[in-house]
Amino acid sequence: MEKVKVIIMGLGAMGGGMADMLLKKQGVEIVGVVGRGKMLGTSMYDHISTPRGDREDVIVGAMEDVITEKAADVVLLCTDSFTRKAFDKIKFIVEKKINVISSAEEMAYPMAQEPELAKEIDRLAKENGVSVLGTGINPGLIMDLLVILMTGCCEEVHSILSRRVNSLSPFGPAVMEEQGIGITVEEFNKGVQEGTLAGHVGFHESIGMIADAIGWKLSAPITQSMEPIVTDVDRKSPYGFAKAGNVAGCAMKGFGYVDGELKIEMDHPQQIEPEQVGVQTGDYVIINGVPNINMVNSPEVPGGIGTIAMCVNMIPQIINARPGLHTMIDLPVPRAIMGDFRDLISEEAKIVK
Amino acid sequence: MEKVKVIIMGLGAMGGGMADMLLKKQGVEIVGVVGRGKMLGTSMYDHISTPRGDREDVIVGAMEDVITEKAADVVLLCTDSFTRKAFDKIKFIVEKKINVISSAEEMAYPMAQEPELAKEIDRLAKENGVSVLGTGINPGLIMDLLVILMTGCCEEVHSILSRRVNSLSPFGPAVMEEQGIGITVEEFNKGVQEGTLAGHVGFHESIGMIADAIGWKLSAPITQSMEPIVTDVDRKSPYGFAKAGNVAGCAMKGFGYVDGELKIEMDHPQQIEPEQVGVQTGDYVIINGVPNINMVNSPEVPGGIGTIAMCVNMIPQIINARPGLHTMIDLPVPRAIMGDFRDLISEEAKIVK
Repeated sequence: MEKVKVIIMGLGAMGGGMADMLLKKQGVEIVGVVGRGKMLGTSMYDHISTPRGDREDVIVGAMEDVITEKAADVVLLCTDSFTRKAFDKIKFIVEKKINVISSAEEMAYPMAQEPELAKEIDRLAKENGVSVLGTGINPGLIMDLLVILMTGCCEEVHSILSRRVNSLSPFGPAVMEEQGIGITVEEFNKGVQEGTLAGHVGFHESIGMIADAIGWKLSAPITQSMEPIVTDVDRKSPYGFAKAGNVAGCAMKGFGYVDGELKIEMDHPQQIEPEQVGVQTGDYVIINGVPNINMVNSPEVPGGIGTIAMCVNMIPQIINARPGLHTMIDLPVPRAIMGDFRDLISEEAKIVK
Repeated sequence: MEKVKVIIMGLGAMGGGMADMLLKKQGVEIVGVVGRGKMLGTSMYDHISTPRGDREDVIVGAMEDVITEKAADVVLLCTDSFTRKAFDKIKFIVEKKINVISSAEEMAYPMAQEPELAKEIDRLAKENGVSVLGTGINPGLIMDLLVILMTGCCEEVHSILSRRVNSLSPFGPAVMEEQGIGITVEEFNKGVQEGTLAGHVGFHESIGMIADAIGWKLSAPITQSMEPIVTDVDRKSPYGFAKAGNVAGCAMKGFGYVDGELKIEMDHPQQIEPEQVGVQTGDYVIINGVPNINMVNSPEVPGGIGTIAMCVNMIPQIINARPGLHTMIDLPVPRAIMGDFRDLISEEAKIVK
């Protein structure tokens, strides 16, 4: 069998990390990279951690030049957070008869926020005989798939609390800005009111995925809240700085109601340097049910590595899947790939034979 | 759509618990129960916790009378621990063109201990257009599927430790005997030497499932060890009693090697009344990798409820699956079913239309 052929679209922190990860794996190769602006014509190896060594070079190209019909088995699309912004790219790729894995948060469960686009993606994928999946660490695993898995050993579920207390310190300037790191409380509150602070994107997706998976019908629109985490001491991370009295993080909560009762709660405080002030980071799954579940992974799975690994590790599942739009709840569980990628691929599902 | 129709074979603690659970659910009904000896001709409700009320009665019958062609969508087979002992029953059921979920520990990954029988079950299932799955709490979830899921957010996995520290107090006389509760250390050691103490069945299955899932080739046969947990104080559970100085539990370990290196370790001490001596029970997933995972669910998922829930909750997945022998790693994740079972079933996969 030919090696599994991957195109990476968007060579930022996520796409670049996926390239580095793929270069360590067997039975898989990067056959193209899509970028834009000044990156066009440069070597992929100029933008990632792995040195080129004696590998064949991969030159960053424009979408139309790199993504041609059946040029790869899968495109890892790492450019957006929102389905609406990713849609045209997904359409372009599936019409070239290539599978897609998107790291866009909304694509983890696009039926939550963009049901019409989700239907259209499903239709386009089926028409072209390929599959589309959105995944990542969150949404994608920690605050949804892991929760759903643990309900699997429950006879009854009364309510769910998913909590992710994580550090933003490893992240770069874009995340610092999205989360309001270093700004004043007044600026933060203004950003919340005006909708300019992004915070975490994913509660609609995680809550929607859990509710649909276990058969709860949400009786009201999902709501969320956003509060500043104000620091008492100066905190400094590689790309962020918060003076005492200013904002060191963004605490978000999300709420899903069934028959007027709060059934699914998300609690996700994100901040730089939590250890400095004695905050223990971790991922928590707390299920009030039969039996109760009281699970913690501490420290938390780091967001960057986790998203990179989830997107790469789902490559076999999305190649093997029946054509259409998929989500993490209808595919076999993600797993690390320590052997040859080809051992995991069905012959008949391979695009580049 | 007709309700999902279930036959339960074996109405012991597990089968009986599944009946109680199913009776609380929507869109599913128990259409038959298979038993033997004195149970034949009695009402199912004489053997379970749920009162009959004004429900139609279900009379326990012999296998040949209850399991007729397409009499149900699935049989929950709760009679054995070993594939070899369950095989004839599985063959009988699939030849009647009904899907099977087995709680037999070895059936969670029958290719580990019985590769020939596994192939034959796969062949028979495909020939008859139905699916077969073995599952439970362990093997089935805690020491394998959950571990595998968490490797899904890892770029690399160096080694795995799965630990389950659980209480045997809720279990009945059969488990007390299998685990050597109350016997002397000499009797325990003799039982280990002569192979008469069963202990935990499942390490071959869990280690085999993890290794295959992440692409590690085991370089040596899986080994395991079995030590008595000797109590310093008298311990008493509803069905067990261990005098100070005698055996209150059975500590098993399992070892999977890759290229001569210990890569997968299982640690599973089981005892009555662990709280009495300050032992904190819990399920642990410890992955040495990129990133590290350090997860605990405490207290542990109780074995009985967990197995009952896993078998019932996988009903939609096994009805929808393509024909053949399946395992937890090739099906969508288990989840609680709080809505109508029929909402989860594909029309074309339903057996009793």
